[in-house]
Amino acid sequence: MQQDPELEALRGSIDNLDAAIINLLAERFKITQRVGLLKKEHGLAAADPEREELQIARLRRLAQEANLDPEFAQKWLTFVVAEVVRHHQALGAE
Amino acid sequence: MQQDPELEALRGSIDNLDAAIINLLAERFKITQRVGLLKKEHGLAAADPEREELQIARLRRLAQEANLDPEFAQKWLTFVVAEVVRHHQALGAE
Repeated sequence: MQQDPELEALRGSIDNLDAAIINLLAERFKITQRVGLLKKEHGLAAADPEREELQIARLRRLAQEANLDPEFAQKWLTFVVAEVVRHHQALGAE
Repeated sequence: MQQDPELEALRGSIDNLDAAIINLLAERFKITQRVGLLKKEHGLAAADPEREELQIARLRRLAQEANLDPEFAQKWLTFVVAEVVRHHQALGAE
């Protein structure tokens, strides 16, 4: 099975997609770092539940259009935002 | 602050990146679904710790090159793979 050519091809595609996503996430974090600094300058809270609610609704809709489980899209965003908030809090604590 | 033009522009970029990532994740799940079917056909386990170890090492390296926290990249992959394994197990249970 290690040499199954279809499995190998599929895994190659997964690896390519993961590389693309990691680079997009790197870009996303560069931007949220700037957002974190702006929020700190303006004395705003790291988390923004209202904005997050809009993001969740939008990503669920995009997921549905792309045939991705909307529950997963929501969990995914929650996971990423939690990491961003952790960074912002670390920034605020400096 | 709601109308801060820089914050609004940054949020627009975050939303664009998220839309791109959601579409790449949709594609990734299409592929892992096919992998799940192949594994089922061959009677293989849903999880593959050896493959996962290679993926983690690679993504950590890619993250570092892109200036993203390698710890985050690893946590991210673990999160996504857990969801995939959950799907594979559901498939196996059918």
